[in-house]
Amino acid sequence: MADLYWPGDERAGDVFGQGAFLAAMVRVESAWLGALVRAGIAPAEADTDLTGLVNDTDVDDVAAAAEAGGTPVLPLLGLLRDRAPGDAAGWLHRGLTSQDVVDSALMLCARDALDATLQTVDRQADALAALADRHRDTVMAGRTLTQHAVPITFGLKAARWLDGVLDARDQLAGVRLPAQLGGAVGTLAATVELARLSDAAEPVKTARAIAADAAARLGLDDALPWQTNRSPVTRLADALVGATDAWGRIANDVLVLARPEIGELAEPAGRGGSSTMPHKANPVLSVLVRRAALAAPALAAQLHVAAAESVDERADGGWQGEWSALATLARRTVVAASQTTELLEGLRVDADRMAHNAEAASASLLAEQASVAGPAGDQPADLASYLGASNELVDAVLERHRGGRP
Amino acid sequence: MADLYWPGDERAGDVFGQGAFLAAMVRVESAWLGALVRAGIAPAEADTDLTGLVNDTDVDDVAAAAEAGGTPVLPLLGLLRDRAPGDAAGWLHRGLTSQDVVDSALMLCARDALDATLQTVDRQADALAALADRHRDTVMAGRTLTQHAVPITFGLKAARWLDGVLDARDQLAGVRLPAQLGGAVGTLAATVELARLSDAAEPVKTARAIAADAAARLGLDDALPWQTNRSPVTRLADALVGATDAWGRIANDVLVLARPEIGELAEPAGRGGSSTMPHKANPVLSVLVRRAALAAPALAAQLHVAAAESVDERADGGWQGEWSALATLARRTVVAASQTTELLEGLRVDADRMAHNAEAASASLLAEQASVAGPAGDQPADLASYLGASNELVDAVLERHRGGRP
Amino acid sequence: MADLYWPGDERAGDVFGQGAFLAAMVRVESAWLGALVRAGIAPAEADTDLTGLVNDTDVDDVAAAAEAGGTPVLPLLGLLRDRAPGDAAGWLHRGLTSQDVVDSALMLCARDALDATLQTVDRQADALAALADRHRDTVMAGRTLTQHAVPITFGLKAARWLDGVLDARDQLAGVRLPAQLGGAVGTLAATVELARLSDAAEPVKTARAIAADAAARLGLDDALPWQTNRSPVTRLADALVGATDAWGRIANDVLVLARPEIGELAEPAGRGGSSTMPHKANPVLSVLVRRAALAAPALAAQLHVAAAESVDERADGGWQGEWSALATLARRTVVAASQTTELLEGLRVDADRMAHNAEAASASLLAEQASVAGPAGDQPADLASYLGASNELVDAVLERHRGGRP
Amino acid sequence: MADLYWPGDERAGDVFGQGAFLAAMVRVESAWLGALVRAGIAPAEADTDLTGLVNDTDVDDVAAAAEAGGTPVLPLLGLLRDRAPGDAAGWLHRGLTSQDVVDSALMLCARDALDATLQTVDRQADALAALADRHRDTVMAGRTLTQHAVPITFGLKAARWLDGVLDARDQLAGVRLPAQLGGAVGTLAATVELARLSDAAEPVKTARAIAADAAARLGLDDALPWQTNRSPVTRLADALVGATDAWGRIANDVLVLARPEIGELAEPAGRGGSSTMPHKANPVLSVLVRRAALAAPALAAQLHVAAAESVDERADGGWQGEWSALATLARRTVVAASQTTELLEGLRVDADRMAHNAEAASASLLAEQASVAGPAGDQPADLASYLGASNELVDAVLERHRGGRP
Repeated sequence: MADLYWPGDERAGDVFGQGAFLAAMVRVESAWLGALVRAGIAPAEADTDLTGLVNDTDVDDVAAAAEAGGTPVLPLLGLLRDRAPGDAAGWLHRGLTSQDVVDSALMLCARDALDATLQTVDRQADALAALADRHRDTVMAGRTLTQHAVPITFGLKAARWLDGVLDARDQLAGVRLPAQLGGAVGTLAATVELARLSDAAEPVKTARAIAADAAARLGLDDALPWQTNRSPVTRLADALVGATDAWGRIANDVLVLARPEIGELAEPAGRGGSSTMPHKANPVLSVLVRRAALAAPALAAQLHVAAAESVDERADGGWQGEWSALATLARRTVVAASQTTELLEGLRVDADRMAHNAEAASASLLAEQASVAGPAGDQPADLASYLGASNELVDAVLERHRGGRP
Repeated sequence: MADLYWPGDERAGDVFGQGAFLAAMVRVESAWLGALVRAGIAPAEADTDLTGLVNDTDVDDVAAAAEAGGTPVLPLLGLLRDRAPGDAAGWLHRGLTSQDVVDSALMLCARDALDATLQTVDRQADALAALADRHRDTVMAGRTLTQHAVPITFGLKAARWLDGVLDARDQLAGVRLPAQLGGAVGTLAATVELARLSDAAEPVKTARAIAADAAARLGLDDALPWQTNRSPVTRLADALVGATDAWGRIANDVLVLARPEIGELAEPAGRGGSSTMPHKANPVLSVLVRRAALAAPALAAQLHVAAAESVDERADGGWQGEWSALATLARRTVVAASQTTELLEGLRVDADRMAHNAEAASASLLAEQASVAGPAGDQPADLASYLGASNELVDAVLERHRGGRP
Repeated sequence: MADLYWPGDERAGDVFGQGAFLAAMVRVESAWLGALVRAGIAPAEADTDLTGLVNDTDVDDVAAAAEAGGTPVLPLLGLLRDRAPGDAAGWLHRGLTSQDVVDSALMLCARDALDATLQTVDRQADALAALADRHRDTVMAGRTLTQHAVPITFGLKAARWLDGVLDARDQLAGVRLPAQLGGAVGTLAATVELARLSDAAEPVKTARAIAADAAARLGLDDALPWQTNRSPVTRLADALVGATDAWGRIANDVLVLARPEIGELAEPAGRGGSSTMPHKANPVLSVLVRRAALAAPALAAQLHVAAAESVDERADGGWQGEWSALATLARRTVVAASQTTELLEGLRVDADRMAHNAEAASASLLAEQASVAGPAGDQPADLASYLGASNELVDAVLERHRGGRP
Repeated sequence: MADLYWPGDERAGDVFGQGAFLAAMVRVESAWLGALVRAGIAPAEADTDLTGLVNDTDVDDVAAAAEAGGTPVLPLLGLLRDRAPGDAAGWLHRGLTSQDVVDSALMLCARDALDATLQTVDRQADALAALADRHRDTVMAGRTLTQHAVPITFGLKAARWLDGVLDARDQLAGVRLPAQLGGAVGTLAATVELARLSDAAEPVKTARAIAADAAARLGLDDALPWQTNRSPVTRLADALVGATDAWGRIANDVLVLARPEIGELAEPAGRGGSSTMPHKANPVLSVLVRRAALAAPALAAQLHVAAAESVDERADGGWQGEWSALATLARRTVVAASQTTELLEGLRVDADRMAHNAEAASASLLAEQASVAGPAGDQPADLASYLGASNELVDAVLERHRGGRP
């Protein structure tokens, strides 16, 4: 079942799609199998690259069976055991549990989603830095509670958008992605048993080394099993929503300032046609980004409810509800990141209209100045003289941006 | 992009899937075209059944273009105009707007989801009525705040589950599904103009008759345009969540009572295997239903936020966020309905274990009785004498159930 | 702990406040005590009006003890037993459980909140009907996705706001408020036992009659115990959010149209001053209503999660989380209802500005008409000729409004 | 209006209550006034400690006026100007805007809430470390999806609870609390103007120094104005929910394991009486903590929606909705922290019952071991030999805990 017209496939590709998730699960099984071999528990003949054995054409079958049995791992193992050479088939998944495979695969997919997002966030930041610098003297009306307040520059507005994007980037970059490799209840008991049966000198040490090895091969953090401590999932979700928050705030500004009566900004040309109204150009990128920003908090809330519902050594509903919510949230973030980047790289700024609107409102915009100066005050002749620290604030944000890229 | 391992395709089929939605949009265009012809505005030659012209193989292209342009209607019209005979192509979509097509198609898909849900809800109710009647004398411990309280019967518990399911059914059955047919801003202006150009005597009347005709052909209510009044969507969502609430409450009870230390209920045999633990039988239907119940409220909240964000004559992000949330919520409800039905139809009740557990706790379970009777009270000899109105409450719910099916 | 600067006390009074809830719980105990007397179970001397025995000065103590013990009923009973005459004190709460008192009191408070809301909703509807009728010829730009689309009238916009408000009213008016009177696990076991000890001929019948009597005295529906079937709470919550959705949609329009560059609407004068900017008039009613509309969905979601988390014969966290969420949601709805009413009764419509803006955009607004008419079409001379069925749609909504008040 | 029976006043005191918030706003005005004096802009006579001028008896008036005007700052300033000496009254709030006062006061209250939470979190961690160490050999059944899986120790369970609590502590400790001091649109324009009128050599530099000085006096970070970049609020909210997630997971385990049929854990004695059932001891701390954990995600979602709805230089509804949601979330977190601490410090562990239950289930709990060992495997004699790395995992978490306190 697909997300109704929210696929964004041209933007997201298969990042955190079903195919990608299936492939990630295979990578987890493969990494574990390799680690068993390297530890001398499984025979060298069992060391097989499983990654070619399952592909996108298997997705529907695995998905249907997953829904029937509550986990995608059982049907996946069925396929792999059918298709892998005998030695590999016999050693496959030994020591692991379904949750190991699912959770580690979620983290692998999350990494791809984070990478895709961060790449385009860097482009957003560059575009915004350029806008902030270019328009540091472009005076426009500052607005609070929808009404004219005090003048600002468009450069300052862009710098603040940038500041928000940099906050989002920092949060995204700080996400930790741990492997989950602990067996049925996270004690590695089966792996320890396997090591014992192989006459390992220190079976527990061997088992933990296998987990560390597999995590390293997957490029994930070697961490204590977190099967009922879902903070890796919720902190990831928080970061993704932090990003859509930042982009939503930009989209809202564009939607207001692109209203024809205001007309200070316009989206890049070429999108947003109407089915009946010729020449109508809808600000469709902003609309789609705003859509994502309004939808994301509920998905993160769902993941927090799931985390709060953890119980026993594996949860009874909360955990299973994570997969779809996390994948949906991550994919939408990737798509919204791309749309925001396109929006910002092509944003059209009408400095004349900004000046015109601000001038028309100059009495309102300078009322505070008059009030500060008092009746005897010598009043500034124009809006540009009441910009306060706008320029210095732009500098501060640009400095922060540069600091992020040594 | 698919819902990660939450497809339930064997249970939901294509109800409210992308293919179903595409087909529903075509039905809307077809119904409107037919209505234009019947009103004498479009020529008889334009009357074409469009429903074969687009199929599942077009879904990906339409979806990708929808994400690019913010609406699936433009790419769909492109396909239809390419494939329809000339007269139909020329008259297609005249008088409509994208939102008419999307919203009416949402309602068509919603109807299928409601129908699928209600059918299985009726089976749930029958199964529960049988359980309530059969177990009206099956004594078990009543539990509050996880602790033993006062005895009940399993029949009463089943009757209460039934009461909740009947509430859900009533709410689902009360959902109103209106067509949305109003043109760009809901005034039918283009259709009135077409009627005027056709020399209709009363162009407004003609236009409204066309809308009523198309709605009737679609089997949807003829309603005032509701493009920024989203109560049809939110009331539908409320009803769907009302249903998952009722099922979640049942699943929670099964999950508690199927714990091995309690052992009073068991799921139908045959599902819920483990990837490593032989003979483990997980209560997977309850887990999956509980998953749905925990996830649904956030989706409904998203739809309410979208409704609250309506603005102008068509919204700028909220509306576009509805499609996926509503489809996901509806499909999951269909799946959870099916899973709950399977659970209830095959539920295994261990009356002996119920009796055993209750007897073991009889001092606690009868403490209230002793307290009511006071020191001089003649105390009942057994739990069965302190069931209060359990039997009569079972009767009342069974009566309600029968009342629903004359 | 108070809602941070969201009390709205001048608007909501004590509706669903702590004092009101305490008083409602006393009313439940009082009604039950009276019913025990009338049934001949408790002696006539026990029949006492408890309502004066506890007042607002007791709120803090009860609240603190409620948090300590998980229920407000125990400390309330302590106070009542200390203060009531001996016969009443001895018979107080016999047959009831905490949840009976809390849930029935919630429903009493809900009724007050619904009444307060419905009263002001009727005033909203009247104000909107007047606006719709008065401005049925006031042409303005119709806007979709923030851009100019096709002309409408302000009368039509007001009629649609009215349509949404009428939907909300219907949903609010349809809420059912049942008493909860069933004892520890909802079987009325203790009351049946009391009846038996009083030598009632048919103890179960007597117990159910007592519950029906108490419900009638409270003005609540006599219903089967619903202690773990929370649809009365969720349907109430759905209706409250349905109302804030409708008002939020109005507030959004006012906020857009009151932007100085558009200037078509203004809030009633006299609110919304700035702490530093003289003469700035903020659209504060719309801002506050929008605030409520954005916040309400999450509260309803919380109540649905609580409903989905029901388990056993009384839940272990979900139920306890309802009280605050429901009270907060209800009070905010009362406040937002009042604010919306003030907004609509004093809304200032600048028909000249509407005409001016629309004329300035007439090329855009008539582009669809030109497209429909085609190159050979005789084009309407003005916007007023392309209003489609606007007038008739206004009539239809006004008719609906009149229908609601025979 | 108060949170219905969720005040927890004995636990939370006035942390983030209305009185605390009023006092915090006064501290912001006071710090700013002092900074103006120290910068030589306001005369020395204006330097007044405002903190005694307003107190809890003013809360209701300010709150009511705040709701009427949309901000608590205007009525607060009215009181302060009435009560402060003339020089101070004249210079009060000069250069500030309402949002500066509200946002900085939110951060001050947040700091108190964070401090209160972190203190009790440290006690939780100590209690858990003691439990983990003491019970590292206490064998119990590991449970997944409610069913018996593989043995664990209670020490490992406690260690995992601890791991989750340490994650929460890290997230709480990492929250950044910036001052908001920027004037009407965050440009410091009025302060720059005041500096200019005072003949400051570098008015912008002076203005920024005043903001830095005031922030330092408040103990908040000196940051760029963040009036429409709400990540300080959302990251705080994320951290608070991260904490309730961790506690909710603990409470769920206690609620399961304290069920009478399982009986492995019991809450500290002395709470949780029933209104009708003598001797019933409800696990009320766990119930209340679980309540908080189920409610918190929706509040955080509301704050993210508010963040995503930022627009212009001050938002039109989202911002105003933050205050109550953040205060409620913070206070509940403080209360839940306290309740969790009481729960953990007094938790009663029945090691015998754990052993008994596990032994009774040993066939299930050792099935995986038998499967790993294969038919020829020499099977362990008891559960204690199939604990895998339990002990080492306990050590790892205890090491992490010690690492946090050098």
